[in-house]
Amino acid sequence: MKSLCLALFGAALLTQVQATVVTKTISYRQGDTELRGYLAYDDSLTGDKKAPGVLVFPEWWGVSDFVKGRTEALAKLGYVAFAADMYGDGQTTTDPKKAKELAGAVAGKPSMGERAQAAYDQLIKTGLVDESKMAAIGFCFGGACSQILAYSGVPLKGMVSFHGALVPASVEAAKKNQAKFLILQGALDPLVPEAARTAFLKSMDDGKFDYQFLSYSGAIHAFMNPDADKARANGLEGVGYNPEVAARAWAQMQLFFKEIFNPSSQGT
Amino acid sequence: MKSLCLALFGAALLTQVQATVVTKTISYRQGDTELRGYLAYDDSLTGDKKAPGVLVFPEWWGVSDFVKGRTEALAKLGYVAFAADMYGDGQTTTDPKKAKELAGAVAGKPSMGERAQAAYDQLIKTGLVDESKMAAIGFCFGGACSQILAYSGVPLKGMVSFHGALVPASVEAAKKNQAKFLILQGALDPLVPEAARTAFLKSMDDGKFDYQFLSYSGAIHAFMNPDADKARANGLEGVGYNPEVAARAWAQMQLFFKEIFNPSSQGT
Repeated sequence: MKSLCLALFGAALLTQVQATVVTKTISYRQGDTELRGYLAYDDSLTGDKKAPGVLVFPEWWGVSDFVKGRTEALAKLGYVAFAADMYGDGQTTTDPKKAKELAGAVAGKPSMGERAQAAYDQLIKTGLVDESKMAAIGFCFGGACSQILAYSGVPLKGMVSFHGALVPASVEAAKKNQAKFLILQGALDPLVPEAARTAFLKSMDDGKFDYQFLSYSGAIHAFMNPDADKARANGLEGVGYNPEVAARAWAQMQLFFKEIFNPSSQGT
Repeated sequence: MKSLCLALFGAALLTQVQATVVTKTISYRQGDTELRGYLAYDDSLTGDKKAPGVLVFPEWWGVSDFVKGRTEALAKLGYVAFAADMYGDGQTTTDPKKAKELAGAVAGKPSMGERAQAAYDQLIKTGLVDESKMAAIGFCFGGACSQILAYSGVPLKGMVSFHGALVPASVEAAKKNQAKFLILQGALDPLVPEAARTAFLKSMDDGKFDYQFLSYSGAIHAFMNPDADKARANGLEGVGYNPEVAARAWAQMQLFFKEIFNPSSQGT
């Protein structure tokens, strides 16, 4: 009985020690728009030191539970992560029509770059991050957002696009960009067709970007998100969760972060 | 003086302990052809246990110092590595005309598959490898050799092609193949042009291969090999060493081996 109590106490203590991911909804602004982002970090890993900061740009659904989960996962890896609100008031939706409307109001407009910048500024403002070690990741529409942020010239070390919409870089963007790019695509993604990839990669080559373009067999759009299957069941075509590819892509991001945040540790 | 002696002695001892990569030239046969391959393993890492076995298929120069170096590097990672002789008598050359002749005598012929098989059999025969954990890697022409071996249906867990010639898989090959594929290409490789990649990837998709296709910006052919620059200076076009990409590709292989040899450790 005593050893059982000790075991239970030990397990409870361990759980307490492990439950150190701090999460906060942060209100900030872009122009007249109130934004609500989601911050996560693990202070048992970061301690008093400034940690690398990672921006998380969401799919067109907004800062969903999936996005929050990934933000927390980044915190557990030792990063200070901030999921950006691209819509205002932290709006989210599971309705593809509404998502299309929300994303469409931003995509390709000045507010896209401005809200991405606002997220970057907000993450710096927390005072928790090492400004020389910043990165941006994005899923789907969020992939495009992270590309746009990189093209604006903010001092990102890296940009990771998970089954992202691909935005070809202009000559101007190529000059300003400071980030290394990691582009992770499903080989069979019907929402990012061959022509889009070719145009994107041409702009990457012409602009002399440092990129790694990885195509995963069998994967379609939204391969990172377990909720993609639900969306497909509800009629949204071309999306589907792929757990093996999701695990590979997440491991790929970690390898990339190891390189961009610790260049001296890159071994052969 | 005494502390200097102790320091020197300690350094010598450390060197002795570290110098545990065993290398052997192994004679074996394919049909009437005498072959000479190069085996490497680190018995301080493998000990009494059977380790994963990795075949190394060389560039068209043969089992060169570069190939031997990579074979030894694999040994230091804990694998039992065997560089295959695809030409007979361990022939090597630095003359592109001779290399073209040697490779041409084998490429696409029955001897290509037979010599790849002979290397596989020889590695098994050492008794040092875990037969359920075998992989093949190849550089350039060697990339094609490792694809051919995978297509023959030997139980490889994985195949890594470093700037390899790409051999589209037939329907038969797709049925027999057991390996996961990691294809690492230089984005600007003129010796593996767009049409070749497209045809290869189509066969991969049609045959439902499990693959990851990674294109590295700025890299051309033979990006792994420091000697590529010498070859280019001597008139061979389209080749060039890229140390940053080489480091990334080697790290990529290690990540891939972690997945294929330890599937239960794949995390999110």
